[in-house]
Amino acid sequence: MTEKDKVLSANLEFYRAFTTHDASAMDRLWARTLPVSCVHPGWMALRDRDAVMRSWRDILANPDAPRIMCHDEDAVLYGAIAIVTCEEALADNTLVATNVFAQEDGAWRLVHHQASPLLMRAGHGGRGTNRLN
Amino acid sequence: MTEKDKVLSANLEFYRAFTTHDASAMDRLWARTLPVSCVHPGWMALRDRDAVMRSWRDILANPDAPRIMCHDEDAVLYGAIAIVTCEEALADNTLVATNVFAQEDGAWRLVHHQASPLLMRAGHGGRGTNRLN
Repeated sequence: MTEKDKVLSANLEFYRAFTTHDASAMDRLWARTLPVSCVHPGWMALRDRDAVMRSWRDILANPDAPRIMCHDEDAVLYGAIAIVTCEEALADNTLVATNVFAQEDGAWRLVHHQASPLLMRAGHGGRGTNRLN
Repeated sequence: MTEKDKVLSANLEFYRAFTTHDASAMDRLWARTLPVSCVHPGWMALRDRDAVMRSWRDILANPDAPRIMCHDEDAVLYGAIAIVTCEEALADNTLVATNVFAQEDGAWRLVHHQASPLLMRAGHGGRGTNRLN
């Protein structure tokens, strides 16, 4: 199993914890000693572990939280850091996510997550429109 | 000047290139040999340098592109990688951005950028609603 495989496996574990509402598994996936940050869709950046984990507990405690499937994932390694980009398929919309993992105690653990809605998949005119309006 | 200062300086250079529509400066800020990726607001992930730079040239060539101001920036270093989270203030909305920098040829260069709209700054009920609807 290559390091890239291990990163993609950790990424799938993240979505497994998410879709099974497993707050303990989610906690184990995030770095303990390295600094972490998280940008939920529409939200300001959360920059400390307590705030990040509290946000996940709130999300996972919601019984209406949908199943979420990860697809089109790609991992790029930069030494002991890996950046995964992927899409998150929900029931009625798709998000684009960045998941950054770091080596900590021999495991790949999350240090950063950002997810935001996918509004356009291809084409020209719409590129970057949110910056231009 | 600490490494963190250098990262924050590179981050400001990124927004300076953006707001002055300086495509050449933007190109110089992105890694040349390390892999890069970019998620513009609403867009799917772009995963190769040519696509990323083409997207920036398109955005910066638009004469209606607004000024953009970076604020509330924070940088965390993980060895030769740094993650900056910040807010991007446009004329009528605010985005939240992740900018990942890597050491390349003695400089901090961008390897990843994701920006997405900030919809709520604080509170409880709205947390992660885009995942829950």
